[in-house]
Amino acid sequence: MEQRHKIDLNSDVGESFGAYKIGLDEEVIPLITSANIACGFHAGDPHIMRQTIALANSSGTAIGAHPGLPDLMGFGRRYMDATLEEIKDYFTYQIGSLQAFAVSQGTRLQHVKAHGALYNMAVKDVRIWEAMAEVVSTIDKKLILVVLAGVNRDELKDMGKKNGIRMAFEFFADREYNHDGSLVSRKEPGAVIKDQKKAADRALKMITEGRVLTKNGSEIELSSDTICVHGDNPAAVNLIKQIRTTLSESEIDIVPMGKFL
Amino acid sequence: MEQRHKIDLNSDVGESFGAYKIGLDEEVIPLITSANIACGFHAGDPHIMRQTIALANSSGTAIGAHPGLPDLMGFGRRYMDATLEEIKDYFTYQIGSLQAFAVSQGTRLQHVKAHGALYNMAVKDVRIWEAMAEVVSTIDKKLILVVLAGVNRDELKDMGKKNGIRMAFEFFADREYNHDGSLVSRKEPGAVIKDQKKAADRALKMITEGRVLTKNGSEIELSSDTICVHGDNPAAVNLIKQIRTTLSESEIDIVPMGKFL
Amino acid sequence: MEQRHKIDLNSDVGESFGAYKIGLDEEVIPLITSANIACGFHAGDPHIMRQTIALANSSGTAIGAHPGLPDLMGFGRRYMDATLEEIKDYFTYQIGSLQAFAVSQGTRLQHVKAHGALYNMAVKDVRIWEAMAEVVSTIDKKLILVVLAGVNRDELKDMGKKNGIRMAFEFFADREYNHDGSLVSRKEPGAVIKDQKKAADRALKMITEGRVLTKNGSEIELSSDTICVHGDNPAAVNLIKQIRTTLSESEIDIVPMGKFL
Amino acid sequence: MEQRHKIDLNSDVGESFGAYKIGLDEEVIPLITSANIACGFHAGDPHIMRQTIALANSSGTAIGAHPGLPDLMGFGRRYMDATLEEIKDYFTYQIGSLQAFAVSQGTRLQHVKAHGALYNMAVKDVRIWEAMAEVVSTIDKKLILVVLAGVNRDELKDMGKKNGIRMAFEFFADREYNHDGSLVSRKEPGAVIKDQKKAADRALKMITEGRVLTKNGSEIELSSDTICVHGDNPAAVNLIKQIRTTLSESEIDIVPMGKFL
Repeated sequence: MEQRHKIDLNSDVGESFGAYKIGLDEEVIPLITSANIACGFHAGDPHIMRQTIALANSSGTAIGAHPGLPDLMGFGRRYMDATLEEIKDYFTYQIGSLQAFAVSQGTRLQHVKAHGALYNMAVKDVRIWEAMAEVVSTIDKKLILVVLAGVNRDELKDMGKKNGIRMAFEFFADREYNHDGSLVSRKEPGAVIKDQKKAADRALKMITEGRVLTKNGSEIELSSDTICVHGDNPAAVNLIKQIRTTLSESEIDIVPMGKFL
Repeated sequence: MEQRHKIDLNSDVGESFGAYKIGLDEEVIPLITSANIACGFHAGDPHIMRQTIALANSSGTAIGAHPGLPDLMGFGRRYMDATLEEIKDYFTYQIGSLQAFAVSQGTRLQHVKAHGALYNMAVKDVRIWEAMAEVVSTIDKKLILVVLAGVNRDELKDMGKKNGIRMAFEFFADREYNHDGSLVSRKEPGAVIKDQKKAADRALKMITEGRVLTKNGSEIELSSDTICVHGDNPAAVNLIKQIRTTLSESEIDIVPMGKFL
Repeated sequence: MEQRHKIDLNSDVGESFGAYKIGLDEEVIPLITSANIACGFHAGDPHIMRQTIALANSSGTAIGAHPGLPDLMGFGRRYMDATLEEIKDYFTYQIGSLQAFAVSQGTRLQHVKAHGALYNMAVKDVRIWEAMAEVVSTIDKKLILVVLAGVNRDELKDMGKKNGIRMAFEFFADREYNHDGSLVSRKEPGAVIKDQKKAADRALKMITEGRVLTKNGSEIELSSDTICVHGDNPAAVNLIKQIRTTLSESEIDIVPMGKFL
Repeated sequence: MEQRHKIDLNSDVGESFGAYKIGLDEEVIPLITSANIACGFHAGDPHIMRQTIALANSSGTAIGAHPGLPDLMGFGRRYMDATLEEIKDYFTYQIGSLQAFAVSQGTRLQHVKAHGALYNMAVKDVRIWEAMAEVVSTIDKKLILVVLAGVNRDELKDMGKKNGIRMAFEFFADREYNHDGSLVSRKEPGAVIKDQKKAADRALKMITEGRVLTKNGSEIELSSDTICVHGDNPAAVNLIKQIRTTLSESEIDIVPMGKFL
């Protein structure tokens, strides 16, 4: 009997704050398998964190911490010249805060994924991935660290082994890739793929063939464990549905990363 | 063989923030047995939290979370009209954040004590103690909740039993008490006892006789597990030393509350 | 020739923050005559403040500062035990910050109105109105301070005279009133009037007769210079339109308070 | 009659926050001629701002706004990827907030000087100086903008003219300079001059000869209107006294920049 392909769908949720609401969490969370929950630095607050875990629990969606830079006004999207030590401390603090809410609701975290500028800083400086892996390892070796697929794969795998944790490689279905496996910058025209059928087909090809068509027309090898999707507007939610449909038709199982990694 | 008296000394530490330094933590932490560490809402930041745990570890001082209201500008000293649910969420968030730093340094939290206005609000509204006990219970039943000795003792003991956690009763050596067991408000003249010998002797009497002299000259029954001391100035540090000397001379053991509760 | 009645319509706007959007400002601002702009403590940020002034300028709507308590997580709606001195300093800071944006766009502030809990605290403690009047007076005597109509009218008028500033009395069209002129608490059933025709008719009666029907069926004298309306949802915007229609049909002029006070 | 040399001494003050105290403001403010007052983003709060202006008024020290990045935890010392528009809005907001306190105490701002990372970002990207000059110009053309002497002097002078404002060039007495007029990075050994006599003599030479000895032993032309001094520790205060003594002995007048620019 042939093994069926397995893939995880992750999305950033729990990004509301106080009286401010962002994201279609009620719609999105049942459609994904891994929920990245903001932890109060770039978005989210204690009340929202508790509610979002409850929402994920009710639909069987796995939960993870989504730590960001301490920049609520900038939604954690602005690069900040934080030291590796500061980044580690911010990571520890935020993962711990979400863990307590998980435990108090009888569940536990599956994964950790850095948010916004913090994620992009790690893509550009592998020492930041290393710092994050160390933190995750010292807090709970069962936690999975989500990293970008496409660049530094071998180095990141070794980093996971060295720290005794699992690394999940992430693919962006609606983003163009460069030939070196990096994402085409959002500042370049056409960096984001608007055609939802095309985006879903790219996800399918990546899963079944382990290959991605790059912007310059070449194909590169790229495999991933999880696909990042968005939930901040109805069109984004439709893309999730399109991806689910396309993958289901090809008999690919959509399951939380913790089930197969 | 007669059992020796045991008492814990607790103090608020880790209240620095960023470039701002408050408190003589390096001096105080080795002199106390339980360190209440600020968790970033009213004071403290991720960097300070990590450092303070390291400091406590190096002197064998037990550590606890010291959650406060989200009011850095007011140092958590201003009453805020937060709901019970908000208070529970703030408690959960802050305890979790400190727990992660403890785990990452191979240690664990012993206790939880609310800070400033949050503590005073609980003294006035027992439902807030109840909310805190529930949070502590759902996060880790081994955690001790520190509450004010003197008022509602039976109710608080029952609350602990009901939630399956230990409650530690706290005494203030340098504060006058009313006849009903409550603290004389700081706004009243003479509420704070400046004479260090007198304060230390009050601690001794409370431990050995279970009695405290009130402001109006009567004596009331009052026993506690821990004595709150301060470390924000050299005089306060001297009071800790005075208390240690007085208690040691009477063969009272000063040990972390978790060892005897 | 008889003088036509004049009334101002004010609404809280500019309450978005960073990536978070709240309120239908683009729709609301052209419908009102005085815009209360949040100043960054309970809501709003420097970017939003600048944009909101630009929006008001483009529709000829007068602008005012809307200072709140430093509680972004609670949207300034939670009572805080701030001293009169702290309140004065928060007021000064926030008014100044908005003034600079006004000046840099070639305009100036017309009025100041406290937000949420700060407003309600002043209603309950007239010393807070006094503190606000003093601040407004020291910053710019041309600024109008908005206060609640219905209670302490004579005292508030005297306060304005003493401080050399104008006071604008505010009426809530969609709120029930007690016989003493105070608002029925939102916690009581029926405190908010949902029937928009009824709310608009109450506004009309207040303007033309200087009288309001209270919850217990009695009528009291109550006159105001401005009516508070809301813009956080489409129904609220419809109420503004309903009020505008009702007042226009009765030949009442809707103009900024600064034009007639 | 020969004209005596005139120089201004400026220092960052008002950097305390809530319960946190930083800086020897009471000692420093009477020793300087221009006080750069923090405005609540990287340091300072409304209460401290009011107090610091009162302190400056009592010693006749001129006051200025010292706006920083919104990063209290990092004391505004960390580079942030803020846009020019964001920087302008942060500048406007903070200058305005301090202006209101000045006006309410019957005084006015003399100057504006960016803090920490924001200042360093401008040194590296002249478009940021330009953005600041535009803001200052739209708020109050009487305000002086403080910029680094040594690089881009002509361009900065033109920028001032174009915006109709005065620019003040600033010299660092205790910092080594590169041959191109830029400051030697603090990360390099010897970048900060510890010998107070030497630092004071460098100030004297700069004033009287318009020349500075660079790190590689060459001399460059460099003139300035104001010297930046520090007040966060007793040694720093001593350097201010040393500079005052050295300059006084050479009959140089120490006066606020607004008096001679």
